[in-house]
Amino acid sequence: MDLIEKMTDSQLIFDGYVVHLYKDTVQLPDGKTGYREYVKHVGAVCVVPVTDEGEVLLERQFRYAVDQVLTEIPAGKLDYPGEDWAEAALRELREETGAVPRELIDMGDYYGSPAIMGERIRMFLAKGLTFTENDLDEDEFLEVFRMPLDEAVKAVLKGEIPDGKTQCGILRAAMMLQTEA
Amino acid sequence: MDLIEKMTDSQLIFDGYVVHLYKDTVQLPDGKTGYREYVKHVGAVCVVPVTDEGEVLLERQFRYAVDQVLTEIPAGKLDYPGEDWAEAALRELREETGAVPRELIDMGDYYGSPAIMGERIRMFLAKGLTFTENDLDEDEFLEVFRMPLDEAVKAVLKGEIPDGKTQCGILRAAMMLQTEA
Repeated sequence: MDLIEKMTDSQLIFDGYVVHLYKDTVQLPDGKTGYREYVKHVGAVCVVPVTDEGEVLLERQFRYAVDQVLTEIPAGKLDYPGEDWAEAALRELREETGAVPRELIDMGDYYGSPAIMGERIRMFLAKGLTFTENDLDEDEFLEVFRMPLDEAVKAVLKGEIPDGKTQCGILRAAMMLQTEA
Repeated sequence: MDLIEKMTDSQLIFDGYVVHLYKDTVQLPDGKTGYREYVKHVGAVCVVPVTDEGEVLLERQFRYAVDQVLTEIPAGKLDYPGEDWAEAALRELREETGAVPRELIDMGDYYGSPAIMGERIRMFLAKGLTFTENDLDEDEFLEVFRMPLDEAVKAVLKGEIPDGKTQCGILRAAMMLQTEA
């Protein structure tokens, strides 16, 4: 079965600071007409930073869209379309936590909400951390803390960490490091 | 540190079929004024369906927002705000795959993109599947297939399954079933 939908018209509904909302008209696989409302996004990175002591660096951050303080791995938007993923990951990690890794491993793409959000997040594992000053953006408010990685895995499995990329990043990092050990 | 942001004004930018876009004015933790662009969403469910043979049911579906066919676990929107999560999970699972589980385990919340998307997804593990007819919505086009769960885990770790809830669901299900075994 051909699953592809073909764009026949595209309408920019709202061109905001972060959100660029479109409503496109598409030809569905059965030839009928459909509509797709979706958000274009410059792209983002997230990093699972694991210390040599087996702790993961996490952040508490208020997320207005879900009206709660979430526990998350460090993450941030690209500075411009096409920015190098690894450079962006190193920048966001340092800005938010002060950490500089000896090794940065690309874990591939993460689409958090592909029915609506075009946001592509590239995920990294950062190992062998040394620390320098952090350097938050003026409108960023977050608290950094550490948790043993095996405790973080348990918290994910108990449903205590609702942020998707953080659940994913913690489990993938734990499985990858286990395989290495 | 108080991380909370307080709404001082809320503006509905676009009230679509799926996307309800708002731009709110907020008081930031330092007292300054900020703006938050975000999407309100009715909520959704996703299900990791695992057969007694240790296979996971997956779907191939075109996602217009990211312009590619993604491999995903069954998922769908609530029919109305406040719908029972488990009922919605059973409905979406049956509609998309025909599967009816003997056991449905609540794995908690998943926020795919909480910087922008208000979408709360409740994740379930479904075990002991029997099969009836599926019953897709008229505008749903997807292909269902099976993959051994341990192969699915390997695919996630290799970065071959970019959908976030699917990465997450496969790893969580595998770890939970391993603990039981």
